[in-house]
Amino acid sequence: MQAEIIAIGTELLLGQVVDTNSSWMGEQLALSGIACHYQTKVGDNHGRIVAALRLALERSDVVICCGGLGPTQDDITREAIAEVAGVGLVRDEGLVEAISTLFSARGRVMSQNNLRQADVPEGAVPILQERGTAPGLICPVGPHVVYAVPGVPHEMRDMMTRAVIPDIVERSGQAAVIASRTLRTWGLAESTLAETLASRIEALDALGNPTIAFLASGIEGIKVRITASAAIPAGEGAAGRARLEVDRLIATEETEIRDLLGDTVFGVDDETMEAAVGRLLEAAGRTLGVAESLTGGLMASRLVAVPGASNWFRGGIVSYATEVKQTLLGVPPGPVVSAEAAEAMALGAARALGASVALAVTGVAGPAEQEGQPVGTVWVGIAIDGAAEVVEVRGAGDRERIRQFATINALDLLRRRLLGPGLG
Amino acid sequence: MQAEIIAIGTELLLGQVVDTNSSWMGEQLALSGIACHYQTKVGDNHGRIVAALRLALERSDVVICCGGLGPTQDDITREAIAEVAGVGLVRDEGLVEAISTLFSARGRVMSQNNLRQADVPEGAVPILQERGTAPGLICPVGPHVVYAVPGVPHEMRDMMTRAVIPDIVERSGQAAVIASRTLRTWGLAESTLAETLASRIEALDALGNPTIAFLASGIEGIKVRITASAAIPAGEGAAGRARLEVDRLIATEETEIRDLLGDTVFGVDDETMEAAVGRLLEAAGRTLGVAESLTGGLMASRLVAVPGASNWFRGGIVSYATEVKQTLLGVPPGPVVSAEAAEAMALGAARALGASVALAVTGVAGPAEQEGQPVGTVWVGIAIDGAAEVVEVRGAGDRERIRQFATINALDLLRRRLLGPGLG
Repeated sequence: MQAEIIAIGTELLLGQVVDTNSSWMGEQLALSGIACHYQTKVGDNHGRIVAALRLALERSDVVICCGGLGPTQDDITREAIAEVAGVGLVRDEGLVEAISTLFSARGRVMSQNNLRQADVPEGAVPILQERGTAPGLICPVGPHVVYAVPGVPHEMRDMMTRAVIPDIVERSGQAAVIASRTLRTWGLAESTLAETLASRIEALDALGNPTIAFLASGIEGIKVRITASAAIPAGEGAAGRARLEVDRLIATEETEIRDLLGDTVFGVDDETMEAAVGRLLEAAGRTLGVAESLTGGLMASRLVAVPGASNWFRGGIVSYATEVKQTLLGVPPGPVVSAEAAEAMALGAARALGASVALAVTGVAGPAEQEGQPVGTVWVGIAIDGAAEVVEVRGAGDRERIRQFATINALDLLRRRLLGPGLG
Repeated sequence: MQAEIIAIGTELLLGQVVDTNSSWMGEQLALSGIACHYQTKVGDNHGRIVAALRLALERSDVVICCGGLGPTQDDITREAIAEVAGVGLVRDEGLVEAISTLFSARGRVMSQNNLRQADVPEGAVPILQERGTAPGLICPVGPHVVYAVPGVPHEMRDMMTRAVIPDIVERSGQAAVIASRTLRTWGLAESTLAETLASRIEALDALGNPTIAFLASGIEGIKVRITASAAIPAGEGAAGRARLEVDRLIATEETEIRDLLGDTVFGVDDETMEAAVGRLLEAAGRTLGVAESLTGGLMASRLVAVPGASNWFRGGIVSYATEVKQTLLGVPPGPVVSAEAAEAMALGAARALGASVALAVTGVAGPAEQEGQPVGTVWVGIAIDGAAEVVEVRGAGDRERIRQFATINALDLLRRRLLGPGLG
């Protein structure tokens, strides 16, 4: 099964919006075992969208269009798909009602333009919206299928997960339930991960189901995706039983992998490192404060973005100037890129912010060395109930990369510490 | 003149790397008046790169390939271009020398693989590297041209600016010098900007040279690009005189536009809002501290990223918990989303961080209202030499967007204040 993505919107070509949608869709397709050899961006131009669709349908089995489903005259994805399918647009009365209901529920007046979103190419099945107004489409074109999803990222992601990927997977094979779970890891290279999991990879290669796949996420670690399937035989309740079987396969494999990887797994599916840290803090009834030098607020801004952070996050001190480290955090005179400084920063942050746990980072982001320490030197301090530990780590790359690395590495060190004893 | 972009790399299709290069290139082409109707991503596969190139050359006058110029066996852009051009690869001795020199200057051993980077399609002109090892290419294919630039963003940007865009512009018309400057604005909608500049737009429409174009950059404002050209007549020194004429046209137009837009212009070309703030602080011999509630470290992390920030940035306090606002910043008991709290936070940050200027932000990022204040309520406090002012602004969108908006808006308010009297 060969898929292809077309991102539609002049703003994408002009660089006003970066096309992160295609990247996310490409990753999801790969994780579901669907090949995707081309991704194209095209503007809001009928002729060029039609040409891009025709070409994609020649090369691929299914084509996913993203964007151009809004209510304005610029939004012409529906018309372009209808032309390529050789059919007209028909107004779907179910969609008319759904869109009207949405507007009246929000107390807003619906313009006639909004009803354009209820137009679907004849023979297409709409994908209902659960988050916005633009419905998606599943539109057969000869032996192939064109899908259309909105360009708003969270609406697109919802429709891809709920409707498009399952539909492609179903078309790609016989009747089966397929599901997957992603274990997020940090701290091991892909080759080391593969070595550590060698026994499972071998066993699964022999079994053929479930399967596991690795996907690098840059500085955020490596994802291990477990995918399992179960055929649906004829008979009542078979789909439900297949679903249970898939869940059982995934859960069993997750246990096997976690036994081998241990603390390297920090989260499941979309869970971030900072969310994992927050979950552990909340479970232990702990509060967190941070002290940042080279990361300059990156740790705090990631932690604040976790839903419910106010339950456990107290705040942070960005001690960029040496005097701030000394006056607010009690760092003693002397080198500030050092174990002593990281320790004092952690203890000082816990004290100043009234937190039972504190995380501190100091180091050299470059471009020049500092206090004789080379670029990439990073000290991490962790204070718990007034006792501090420090760890030295080493980053590489430019300033921005060293900062990002220091941030995720420090959060991971705190996470591992929170998994240890004495935190309850 | 019609251009097209092909981004090469399997990691782009798999979503492991987001293709920000094409977005940037698309913007630069648009700003230089070159149309770009398609952008394609393709993996490291010879047949598919060749197919993508052939198709692009049918649709467009020039094609820019990005990526796949490294030294490994995966890097096959050179071979694909040679095949499409119907020529062989030849080793360029000048490039061999340049690459060897680079390795010995860095004290590193050059592998034979690195010499693959000295191979160029017959008839192609290399674009010399000034930042890495992979040379770029300008390769004629019949009446068309294929350019190749590396996928490393800063190397790509350098080659695009220095060689590719000027070459395309030159091919697009007669002998002329063309240059441009971008004025970055914040705070006005595109329609308001167009109204404010109506007299200039009319005058320039009549003149035809220079021209101005608007480009939205999302929450970071709107760019106004001035582009001027001057024909190069025959004769010695004509190109230099044309260059001077272009510079004069741009400078004159910049003055006209700045007269109309005033403080709305915050920077030129790639200058960020935080860099503009830093420049003003440094010129005034001032130091800055920040206090952040809903922005949670975003302001500090942007400020720290400005080169030379240590000359003027003292640090920040992320006062997420109410008690932290009270104990570290001296916010009085009572509502924390209020003018009083913003004022106290600014004064407290200046005091605690030992800064002569402080910027503070408190507000409601959502999803729920807080203290009876609706989502999007944001108070900004600015303290200078112990005296504070507050401004209320209003954001819209989800949590992340409201945080980003609060950050840039607060930085802009500080910038405007720093342009005022009494700061020297």
